[in-house]
Amino acid sequence: MDNRIMLMDLYELTMAQAWLDQGKEDLEACFEVFFRKVPEDGGYAIMGGVEDLVNFLQETKFTEENLQYLASTGLFNSRFLDYLRHMDFRCSVYAVKEGSVVFPREPLVKVVGPIIQAQILETMILLLVNHQSLISTKASRLRLVAGKRQVLEFGARRAQGYTAALMGARAAYIGGMDGSSCLASGEFYHVPVGGTMAHSFVQSFPTEYDAFVAYADSFPDNTVLLVDTYNVLKSGVPNAILVEKNVLAPKGKHLKGIRIDSGDLTWLTQEARKMLDAAGLTDVKITVSNSLDEYIIRDLQMQDAKIDSYGVGERLITARNEPVFGGVYKLTGIRKAGEKNFTPKMKISENPEKTTNPGEKNLLRFYDLETGKAMADLILLADEDLTPYYQGEAVEIFDPVQTWKRKTLTNYRVRNMLEPLMEKGVVVAKKYSLPELREFCRQELETLWPTIKRFENPQTYYVDLSAKLWQVKDEFLRSHQMHH
Amino acid sequence: MDNRIMLMDLYELTMAQAWLDQGKEDLEACFEVFFRKVPEDGGYAIMGGVEDLVNFLQETKFTEENLQYLASTGLFNSRFLDYLRHMDFRCSVYAVKEGSVVFPREPLVKVVGPIIQAQILETMILLLVNHQSLISTKASRLRLVAGKRQVLEFGARRAQGYTAALMGARAAYIGGMDGSSCLASGEFYHVPVGGTMAHSFVQSFPTEYDAFVAYADSFPDNTVLLVDTYNVLKSGVPNAILVEKNVLAPKGKHLKGIRIDSGDLTWLTQEARKMLDAAGLTDVKITVSNSLDEYIIRDLQMQDAKIDSYGVGERLITARNEPVFGGVYKLTGIRKAGEKNFTPKMKISENPEKTTNPGEKNLLRFYDLETGKAMADLILLADEDLTPYYQGEAVEIFDPVQTWKRKTLTNYRVRNMLEPLMEKGVVVAKKYSLPELREFCRQELETLWPTIKRFENPQTYYVDLSAKLWQVKDEFLRSHQMHH
Repeated sequence: MDNRIMLMDLYELTMAQAWLDQGKEDLEACFEVFFRKVPEDGGYAIMGGVEDLVNFLQETKFTEENLQYLASTGLFNSRFLDYLRHMDFRCSVYAVKEGSVVFPREPLVKVVGPIIQAQILETMILLLVNHQSLISTKASRLRLVAGKRQVLEFGARRAQGYTAALMGARAAYIGGMDGSSCLASGEFYHVPVGGTMAHSFVQSFPTEYDAFVAYADSFPDNTVLLVDTYNVLKSGVPNAILVEKNVLAPKGKHLKGIRIDSGDLTWLTQEARKMLDAAGLTDVKITVSNSLDEYIIRDLQMQDAKIDSYGVGERLITARNEPVFGGVYKLTGIRKAGEKNFTPKMKISENPEKTTNPGEKNLLRFYDLETGKAMADLILLADEDLTPYYQGEAVEIFDPVQTWKRKTLTNYRVRNMLEPLMEKGVVVAKKYSLPELREFCRQELETLWPTIKRFENPQTYYVDLSAKLWQVKDEFLRSHQMHH
Repeated sequence: MDNRIMLMDLYELTMAQAWLDQGKEDLEACFEVFFRKVPEDGGYAIMGGVEDLVNFLQETKFTEENLQYLASTGLFNSRFLDYLRHMDFRCSVYAVKEGSVVFPREPLVKVVGPIIQAQILETMILLLVNHQSLISTKASRLRLVAGKRQVLEFGARRAQGYTAALMGARAAYIGGMDGSSCLASGEFYHVPVGGTMAHSFVQSFPTEYDAFVAYADSFPDNTVLLVDTYNVLKSGVPNAILVEKNVLAPKGKHLKGIRIDSGDLTWLTQEARKMLDAAGLTDVKITVSNSLDEYIIRDLQMQDAKIDSYGVGERLITARNEPVFGGVYKLTGIRKAGEKNFTPKMKISENPEKTTNPGEKNLLRFYDLETGKAMADLILLADEDLTPYYQGEAVEIFDPVQTWKRKTLTNYRVRNMLEPLMEKGVVVAKKYSLPELREFCRQELETLWPTIKRFENPQTYYVDLSAKLWQVKDEFLRSHQMHH
């Protein structure tokens, strides 16, 4: 894929041409990405897609083939196509660090630049952030229930296309999975890869035992055997034990594990564990798969299933319960070339939850110095002075709807959440290795109180507006109401 | 993307090495793709992913980079890596034509060839067929409720990655959508593209009216105005009417449509329609969007909403209600090099619905010569003579479970459903243009009785096994039971 710039909605370019026709090529805009609701009514989400977004920002050149196609639609004039051909890309882009915990209404990505250029980034920015945040968030939930047990992402065959499998495996790893079955994610992103055999392998030999012996011969250090092709307890597990005794032990090797992919996983793993233990194979691991998700895993564990490792497929790679992360890209301010401040803009919708917050913003997170836990996030206008917060001055926050609900924060440190990715067209993003991002995500989840992480009716984390931002919004709403 | 061969599960290659180590490189296998259940409990699915599968079959060379990565895992020996380096790819692949209606248990794709090679195709074949069948099926449902109204795919920003957006737009078009907002789908697949403006465009001007005038100036032949930025009925629609009178009509041009993206779509479109009609704009079209799916569209139409065109986003591009098409890839037979017939193989599972049908197969569909409707499908072993069916001889079919349920088919024509894509490594697939596939899909849906297409409790279409196949399966099950 040489460039991905054409993965955009047509309307990005019709608007762009109309702006150019109106002489607005120097008009500057501020856009931001936010989401309204955590998938599955959870209490938090995990930020995803940032590294891929940085890559995309370097693929914003239109090729002659792209321009020829655009000309062929008959919609665009030659002056506009020339603008695209020679586009001097000079947006600044900020994003919350990949792997961070994030909450509804927060600015996750901020784009400042010529309105034409900032607008045409919309589709790809949303696509990348929505998809990868969705999968990292889902993975973090699986990690929460699985505790220290191994969880591998197994979903490539049910992914919604090539990049869903590849980038999904990476996002799942950041969110807490231990690895993936997807080889491409290993080659291109260094995700640890795992997996053993399919039923077809067992069926291709005259007997199950023959198949197990063949596999143990080829992979004496990594022998994990799929034991449910015929009958788990009458055939699969006994044959696996025989392979240990007849093939592996004589070579000084050792059976690593068995996998069960069907049937009642609680009962089968309990019985299999007893059989393995009785044969002295107490350290042979039991892996299960078969349409698992965090709810089924929770149930299996409550019922004391004997499982060391989970393979999670379609319900992770598609986030099956709620396969959409609803990030939107909204205009928050406009300024003429040379102006310092943005005139705030907001969308007032007939659906109240679609009403946006106006103005260019910053996002601060307050951590309790004593517990290390996150206490609250504060959305501020970009021109507000952050010094008092960095100095730890006491600050009163209030709920933006129930404004009488107030709380004073003291004894905190703050984190400025929006980090620069690109400044006036030049990439300035910090680079993080994949293990760094995964560890960062783990630490982020540690900063949340457990009440925010539970699946049912989680506590709502405080995300408040600064007094100044609240005022700008309130005035905007009042002045608009007077018009109607 | 130069090759996609590394988008596979690790276990495809560990199995492959074990087969090679056992001297089984000439062992031949037959695999087939089938699915067990139609998404959303529908009565049919649409076959997708075939053209992309043909492309993938030509990307089955491992590069030196791929091989270096594989070597770095420490799992593979140099003889196996050499096999991959020089792999003489000679599988034969068959698939049901893209856009066909298909049913559970039917062989949708059949792969015959060296077991090592046929196995490593598994992940990508499933990924392509599962994703694109899912989206084409969903799109066909939207087409069914929308009737002759326009429906456009608008979901790129919520797609699960780049290829989900791109190939999803193509699959949605085949399934019956009129086009997509996604420019890349227009450039690379000739999907018709559509779309107009976002709220940001309206907000970037001092007034809504100014924004509408600017857009009408740039696109006098394609003026569709988004009327819900401030207030649909008090501001948006009146301004749209003014633009017609003040800007377009004087130039001999004409307002094409308005779009509403929020609020009560029934009430707003009814009121907007009245206002437009009262202004003499009876042919101005009303487009709506906002989390639509086939159920919401059905409701809107029952309530007599005044809508000419729908834009459907996340609920189509992710098939949100059920985002997984559960195709599986199962071994059905094994033969030694030089043998003509396969020894049938089947998976007997503790979950009865996971039990497979053994043997290499063919799939026939019977059409009633009088009505043109599809009557039944028949799954046969590949070595069964098809001549009696081509000659229209009376044939008795029976339910594979309730075998006393029998029916005699006469006065029919048959279609041999599995078409060759590749023969011994050489691509032989017929090429179809996208409009051809879309028209074919439309005709396919015409061959189904409406009772099979309804959303709730659809009638089950007959998919029966030939007597010979039923016997092979029955014998396999009986002989297996004797072992345990």
